[in-house]
Amino acid sequence: MGLIVQKYGGSSVADAEGLKRVANRIVATKKAGHQVVVVVSAMGDTTDELIDLANQVSPMPHGRELDMLLTAGERISMALLAMAIGNLGHEAQSFTGSQAGVITDSSHGAARIIDVTPGRIQHALADGAIAIVAGFQGISQDTKDITTLGRGGSDTTAVALAAALEADVCEIYTDVDGVFTADPRVVPSARKLKTVTYEEMLELAASGAKVLHLRCVEYARRFDLPIHVRSSFSNNEGTWVVKDHPEGDTMEQAIIAGIAHDKSEAKITIVGVPDRTGTAARIFQAIADAQINIDMIVQNVSAAATGLTDISFTLPKAEGSKATEILTKIQGEVGFASLQYDDQIGKLSLVGAGMRSHPGITAQFFACLSEAGVNIEMISTSEIRISIVCRATDLEKGVRAAHTAFDLDSDQVEAVVYGGTGR
Amino acid sequence: MGLIVQKYGGSSVADAEGLKRVANRIVATKKAGHQVVVVVSAMGDTTDELIDLANQVSPMPHGRELDMLLTAGERISMALLAMAIGNLGHEAQSFTGSQAGVITDSSHGAARIIDVTPGRIQHALADGAIAIVAGFQGISQDTKDITTLGRGGSDTTAVALAAALEADVCEIYTDVDGVFTADPRVVPSARKLKTVTYEEMLELAASGAKVLHLRCVEYARRFDLPIHVRSSFSNNEGTWVVKDHPEGDTMEQAIIAGIAHDKSEAKITIVGVPDRTGTAARIFQAIADAQINIDMIVQNVSAAATGLTDISFTLPKAEGSKATEILTKIQGEVGFASLQYDDQIGKLSLVGAGMRSHPGITAQFFACLSEAGVNIEMISTSEIRISIVCRATDLEKGVRAAHTAFDLDSDQVEAVVYGGTGR
Repeated sequence: MGLIVQKYGGSSVADAEGLKRVANRIVATKKAGHQVVVVVSAMGDTTDELIDLANQVSPMPHGRELDMLLTAGERISMALLAMAIGNLGHEAQSFTGSQAGVITDSSHGAARIIDVTPGRIQHALADGAIAIVAGFQGISQDTKDITTLGRGGSDTTAVALAAALEADVCEIYTDVDGVFTADPRVVPSARKLKTVTYEEMLELAASGAKVLHLRCVEYARRFDLPIHVRSSFSNNEGTWVVKDHPEGDTMEQAIIAGIAHDKSEAKITIVGVPDRTGTAARIFQAIADAQINIDMIVQNVSAAATGLTDISFTLPKAEGSKATEILTKIQGEVGFASLQYDDQIGKLSLVGAGMRSHPGITAQFFACLSEAGVNIEMISTSEIRISIVCRATDLEKGVRAAHTAFDLDSDQVEAVVYGGTGR
Repeated sequence: MGLIVQKYGGSSVADAEGLKRVANRIVATKKAGHQVVVVVSAMGDTTDELIDLANQVSPMPHGRELDMLLTAGERISMALLAMAIGNLGHEAQSFTGSQAGVITDSSHGAARIIDVTPGRIQHALADGAIAIVAGFQGISQDTKDITTLGRGGSDTTAVALAAALEADVCEIYTDVDGVFTADPRVVPSARKLKTVTYEEMLELAASGAKVLHLRCVEYARRFDLPIHVRSSFSNNEGTWVVKDHPEGDTMEQAIIAGIAHDKSEAKITIVGVPDRTGTAARIFQAIADAQINIDMIVQNVSAAATGLTDISFTLPKAEGSKATEILTKIQGEVGFASLQYDDQIGKLSLVGAGMRSHPGITAQFFACLSEAGVNIEMISTSEIRISIVCRATDLEKGVRAAHTAFDLDSDQVEAVVYGGTGR
């Protein structure tokens, strides 16, 4: 007997059949003796359809109104889910973000949760009901306007509610069986992880693993709330995201937890930058002013003869043209020679808490890439992660080589089970 | 300079083009120097689509959840309308029924408005913004749950808000130019009324005129709030629904305001009812217990020889089979001979405040029907209305005959302008 918060994404509730299947799963959890709070996303493509409608009436819709519009999506899915549960003979009540006490700041479209005051949810639970809560939305503390949380918002709602309710676990249901040592579409022998630490999951998510959003993992870490990532299509145990790997679980004390890869970034190289104090700052301030997030930065040593250097950085491909435009504008002021834009790169990241206590990982990693014929173009490291940039065409080869080199391959090929969907 | 509440129905905002057209009209009102509050329904068929989804997951959805679901419809249209106005360079803010302070009882699906506390609307107006309010919805006083107002709900929201805000007028936009002396599809020479009194409008609405719902007219009468019914497709002056016809407007002091007709009812005749005290009460109690609304009732004089009588009543066709079933159940107890069900009837109603002071209207009415060859089967009257039931096939003939007999025909045939849509 415990309190379980479950989160179902849009693909799990895409149609009436999906809603009924999810309703059955929720009722099974309730019947097992638990109190159940469910966070649900909008059905299937609803959000995209609403955005499309908004664009038809206004090229630049006001954030307050866009949030009002988009929150209709979860309102629909949560009410239908409550009805589907009711049809199974169990009491369910749906609550908007505002009714569930999800208090945010007023950044429409990307609001941050300030507080969660789930009085009505607790009341519903005390009455023996299942509470269904709209993900992705809240109410602003200052203006009392409806807000949305932006990308990863429903996962974050679930974790935040679970923390506020002091739930035993937050179950995030998705279309894969958990977190894998690598993307099973690239590495058929990838293994599902039993556990992964918050730290490792944060690095994996930041490096391209899409199963959980950074924000929700950060939130879970802050409140030390266990997340159980599992499939809504099976009853298999998934992956637990926790503070520490359980002691004695030797399998999980592997040095490397997993390998993430990312083809969504591009590289910009600024050629012939005068090597003067403040130049790099001027360049990256201009990029930051445009709200462009950059990832890795490399600056070559200045050639003494010329006093010029090259600066390369990676950024999301979607921001490529904006960044190029901004840099071109300041070319005269900064005085660099030219720009190179390269969107044929891939990023490969090795993540593992065990890295701290095991020197030599970097050397082993580079050696295996070299043997596989993968040329390293950029390098960046954290305490528990090494990332490299290589040609996009070499990326999958590199992932497989590293997966084998660090003993992550399973005896069994799991691709049969997770084929095609394993993000 | 005044405060105007405008209400647009689902057909006016059925798509992006409709939303933009309505936005232009709202901005024009604002530019004319008025404060503007807009009540909007869900777009086109949205509500029906949501009900269809609900039926797919549950045959008997819980009222609370059905209301939660359906209110998503206005949320979408109001946010889009606010965006479309924003795109024209004017500030607009959308508000849910709850945010607009529409307080109701907790009868989900058919909630009644208890109070309107439009503080946020007044605030938005004071800031110079246009306020867009979701029609058809509110929040229950007791449970703080989202409610819907049922049929005619958006018109009622508009009138209730206008009353609470002490607006100068509530403009109800529809797809016809106003209230007509008869349905222009049946009577091509029907005239648009300049004014109609609350009383007359109530009788017309109750007798089959569909342009305004009974509830909203009742509300307007209670607060003496002028309603201006007009077309969202033209700039023509529509029909004013007011307390009294303006003095000196001889045209409008016509005895008869208009003629309504209704083909949506059926007649049930209970044959051979024992003429005992309490029998009729027993029959109509059974009907009332099933929440069936009946309209006209006629009881024949009992034939002394048999001690038996016949009772006929009319009711919505949709309730026909339910009523027949209930009556069959109590046949043994009441002891009547048989039931006759007739759904080939029509109702024709003559409405006019001038009827009070003009005796002879009834005689003139019956004479013109007789001349037209229309046989009268049932009669019912109020102070300002005479209704008769005839064969459905004779109904339109009767409407035209009465329209001519009471001098309602216009010199001009208006059917060119209103053809096809004139409900």
